[in-house]
Amino acid sequence: MADLPATPILDRVKLPVDLKGLSDRELRQLADELRAETISAVSVTGGHLGAGLGVVELTVALHAIFNAPRDKIIWDVGHQCYPHKILTGRRDRIRTLRTEGGLSGFTKRSESPYDPFGAAHSSTSISAALGFAVAADLGGDPGDAVAVIGDGSMSAGMAFEAMNNAGHLKKRLFVVLNDNEMSIAPPVGAFSAYLSRMYAGAPFHDLKSAARGVVSLLPGPFQEGARRAKEMIKGMAVGGTLFEELGFTYVGPIDGHDLDQLLPVLRTIHARATGPMLIHVLTKKGKGYAPAENSPDRGHARAKFDVVTGEQKKAPSNAPSYTRVFAESLIKEAEADPRIVAITAAMPDGTGLDLFGARFPKRTFDVGIAEQHAVTFSAGLAAGGMKPFCTIYSTFLQRGYDQVVHDVAIQRLPVRFAIDRAGLVGADGATHAGSFDVAFLANLPGMVVMAAADEAELVHMVATAAAHDDGPIAFRYPRGEGVGVEMPARGVPLEIGKGRMIREGGRIALLSFGTRLSEVLKAAEALAARGITPTVADARFAKPLDRDLILQLARTHEALITIEEGAVGGFGSHVAQLLAHEGVFDRGLKYRSMVLPDSFIDQASPEAMYRVAGMDAPQIEAKVLEVLGVSVVGKRA
Amino acid sequence: MADLPATPILDRVKLPVDLKGLSDRELRQLADELRAETISAVSVTGGHLGAGLGVVELTVALHAIFNAPRDKIIWDVGHQCYPHKILTGRRDRIRTLRTEGGLSGFTKRSESPYDPFGAAHSSTSISAALGFAVAADLGGDPGDAVAVIGDGSMSAGMAFEAMNNAGHLKKRLFVVLNDNEMSIAPPVGAFSAYLSRMYAGAPFHDLKSAARGVVSLLPGPFQEGARRAKEMIKGMAVGGTLFEELGFTYVGPIDGHDLDQLLPVLRTIHARATGPMLIHVLTKKGKGYAPAENSPDRGHARAKFDVVTGEQKKAPSNAPSYTRVFAESLIKEAEADPRIVAITAAMPDGTGLDLFGARFPKRTFDVGIAEQHAVTFSAGLAAGGMKPFCTIYSTFLQRGYDQVVHDVAIQRLPVRFAIDRAGLVGADGATHAGSFDVAFLANLPGMVVMAAADEAELVHMVATAAAHDDGPIAFRYPRGEGVGVEMPARGVPLEIGKGRMIREGGRIALLSFGTRLSEVLKAAEALAARGITPTVADARFAKPLDRDLILQLARTHEALITIEEGAVGGFGSHVAQLLAHEGVFDRGLKYRSMVLPDSFIDQASPEAMYRVAGMDAPQIEAKVLEVLGVSVVGKRA
Repeated sequence: MADLPATPILDRVKLPVDLKGLSDRELRQLADELRAETISAVSVTGGHLGAGLGVVELTVALHAIFNAPRDKIIWDVGHQCYPHKILTGRRDRIRTLRTEGGLSGFTKRSESPYDPFGAAHSSTSISAALGFAVAADLGGDPGDAVAVIGDGSMSAGMAFEAMNNAGHLKKRLFVVLNDNEMSIAPPVGAFSAYLSRMYAGAPFHDLKSAARGVVSLLPGPFQEGARRAKEMIKGMAVGGTLFEELGFTYVGPIDGHDLDQLLPVLRTIHARATGPMLIHVLTKKGKGYAPAENSPDRGHARAKFDVVTGEQKKAPSNAPSYTRVFAESLIKEAEADPRIVAITAAMPDGTGLDLFGARFPKRTFDVGIAEQHAVTFSAGLAAGGMKPFCTIYSTFLQRGYDQVVHDVAIQRLPVRFAIDRAGLVGADGATHAGSFDVAFLANLPGMVVMAAADEAELVHMVATAAAHDDGPIAFRYPRGEGVGVEMPARGVPLEIGKGRMIREGGRIALLSFGTRLSEVLKAAEALAARGITPTVADARFAKPLDRDLILQLARTHEALITIEEGAVGGFGSHVAQLLAHEGVFDRGLKYRSMVLPDSFIDQASPEAMYRVAGMDAPQIEAKVLEVLGVSVVGKRA
Repeated sequence: MADLPATPILDRVKLPVDLKGLSDRELRQLADELRAETISAVSVTGGHLGAGLGVVELTVALHAIFNAPRDKIIWDVGHQCYPHKILTGRRDRIRTLRTEGGLSGFTKRSESPYDPFGAAHSSTSISAALGFAVAADLGGDPGDAVAVIGDGSMSAGMAFEAMNNAGHLKKRLFVVLNDNEMSIAPPVGAFSAYLSRMYAGAPFHDLKSAARGVVSLLPGPFQEGARRAKEMIKGMAVGGTLFEELGFTYVGPIDGHDLDQLLPVLRTIHARATGPMLIHVLTKKGKGYAPAENSPDRGHARAKFDVVTGEQKKAPSNAPSYTRVFAESLIKEAEADPRIVAITAAMPDGTGLDLFGARFPKRTFDVGIAEQHAVTFSAGLAAGGMKPFCTIYSTFLQRGYDQVVHDVAIQRLPVRFAIDRAGLVGADGATHAGSFDVAFLANLPGMVVMAAADEAELVHMVATAAAHDDGPIAFRYPRGEGVGVEMPARGVPLEIGKGRMIREGGRIALLSFGTRLSEVLKAAEALAARGITPTVADARFAKPLDRDLILQLARTHEALITIEEGAVGGFGSHVAQLLAHEGVFDRGLKYRSMVLPDSFIDQASPEAMYRVAGMDAPQIEAKVLEVLGVSVVGKRA
């Protein structure tokens, strides 16, 4: 760890109210210290660095001019909130970011009154801010509402819906468009091109000097001259029509790293605004830290790193990540089948489609942060005779659920859903957990739902999905590295609705769905030492179920336990429905279904989260012993 | 029924190809005949009249110029497709619209190759059309793709996402914006205001005569002059910037009821377009049929009616609709509690919020077709101290699922979800069935999920939701009239997680969740005649479950059957999880869970659909007899 930076002004700031007494010059120094502190903290914890560095000056300016927590400052996605956390009473814990028991990497209501609306998924901030603004108007919690939203998030349909409604309601509302020309990946879409055109005509330094000119005209920030400043700044706008058409007053673009622009503009609109305002701010992701500025993703999400060199300290791994296995498998399938195309919603790196896209640029579609469109676009591709792999994290597929039901399942279109980040995901916490996909997909008529037990299984499931042309098919796999099994040279399509026996035993059967299989096998080893040899099977399919396998397990064992990385309503519920329907319970069966618990599980390592969830090997072992009524000396778990 | 209209030209049109030989004059007459036939058909069947009448000329023009089914004409929502169906080989069945075994009231892939992409939910057409366009480009199914989308549907986020992506990809693609200034309710939102401004400056008749002038310049539709015509027509545009900024070439606005404008414009762009085109067409919902034009909703959805007077033939009912009971109950609660507000996504009539809005205009928010925003806006309102009732049909709540998870449930915000149209809905068919909400809500930590067994229960559940401030709560109720029970003067909050015993019996317990209760009671009556007196209970809550009630039923009966109007993964699955966890199955219990079957059920009356689903009284009775092993002479169901 590098030495802690010297931060004399920051040291005097315990809460945002402490900014009120600072001069503009001191605020500028505060911003520099805040940047140094942010870099120092993330070097220890890892996390989203670039986004926070891009909004250091904006964070200072907003807290200097607005009055949180009375005023609600809502950070879209929330991953740019580290400087905000440092200024809002959480500096003493900032080096616990994203660790078990530490600060969340996102804004979180339960963490601080300065986080009025938590986030982690994108494009929610304007809707929430409008809710606060309307509530204040109706006698609810008073104060201004400010949404800070990136250009990538702004291009999502949800943000458009909120803008449309805000422009209609005409309440005082502040939307800061943090335009860094990069959400996570470089932005795509016509909207992004529109933003680029808006400042292409006016070189950045010209705007900067023009704004300085404006500031020099100001007798004082809250005096009469401010009105004129507002008009002049507004006049600088080279665009903004789109926002004006939606009912917003547009101000910008202004240099988001220049407090000499930010402070007077925000002071003016804070004093004068009566309706919805769009403040267009240009920033640079990773600003002020060369290793972040120069990296391809501008330091989006980083492991711990050396402050001086920027070198990341990620532990090397022997097994490939599931994401990479998926991408490489899909490339192999696509080499053999020109109908295969791949779709991502602004996550080419996270999903591995950057690799696919490098190999097949014309068959790769990054549609932007637009999961609803991604799913129905895939449905259209399928209806047009292609084999679309719609590749979305479990948690983000929730954004396109109606499209899965209405456009894909009801029409029985062969869209392939590659569901990354299934189950608990670690440092990103509850907001990113992929807990519900099996439940919300497996009850859709005609849907096939698979979960890979290991990385070799994933290879086969990619092949299975490629071969399956009779309706939609989904396969899920977790974040992180595989278990190190031997890899097949090429995937072989699995028989739809058939599981596999892993080891035959007696008394109790453990039926796993997904990557808990390795924990189940560990539990089985431990049980063998106690003289109990469970049967272990891998269901592979939550839909259609392997009826023969399941009924055979139920009929030849005293007990049956299902294990899955998902909430109730999924695999185990479908098994229970089958067993009930077949009258298996009539005769008695010790049936249990191990699912994620009925709580949102906070960030920790995935392993620690599964321990909290009660789903690691010792707890599976304990469940078996409990079900079989075996008393244990020296109880575990 | 009025006499069938005389339709000499329409009688010669069996398929769209038959339009190719018609002169423009004949096409105009065809449009008139098609309008008469549409009115005649809907007078027999009921259905969406206004939307179809608004696009009669557009339908004729599209089929005259494009080549379906090679070219894909995709009707957004699909409820305007009756004229399209008449022209595409389905005229002989048009008087079976929306009836059991008849034509769907929407487009449907399984019904005709002329329906390349089915719809029923709004705003999907551009995504689908872009999928077809890209597929054609990559060697898939060839042909042009045309999306016809209303101004209301265009304001949804999903449409914006699709436009954004289409503008980026730059493929040849046709989007016809059918601007009738009315989706179902009068449109709201800044986008709608933007469209209004676009033609406010240019009176409609001026545009019309200007376009006629253009047409008179044309030497022939496919000759060189057409290019000039295109430029001139484009020059007529008083707006369009927003679409141009998104990468579309904008043409319009043109009079959508004037084939002298539609035909040359479409011919020109069909011949010339190389990228995405936005054709802005002005139409009038209900056009050409005075009773529809003059009704407040312009004949959106109608019962059967008399063609001459327009009088609807809806059967009178004694019991109030659930929708009305909800609205009246909410008004009563809101009179006592100023914090109650109500939110709808463009369905004020369908949800009863038109009544609420008449009483509390400032506390009612119609956000437009924008379910994602509706949910998170509600979350913001709740965070700001209000009591929002987010009122959305079950099937449309699927559009806001991620927002329910991420913005409401994880933050434990007290948003009240009033879920209308739960279960099977009748004539709207599978696309509108509310089958999945219990499954996708009840596994969210902290969520309370209720279902009303009758209209009096609904009154109490509205009161329960109003009183419940500790996290989110949802209550579901079906389409249609109540069962005629006595109504309480005022709702009384229910104890959270407590069901109610309806009648105590023996051997078997029937545990109902929702309005199947009346069928369960009928089945119980029939069983009593056979000497079997089941216990009947109403669960009221799928979450939290009434553990005491359920375990008591399980322990004191030989058999337990759950019944719910939803798919597997919902109430019954939660009951099974509880019973398994408590070891109830270890000792044997004849447990069954009656849920909607694993198929999408086609339109019919709700009663007929539940019969297909196996969930009416005789089938519940039969299930009881089967489970108890009672053989029946003269088998039923």
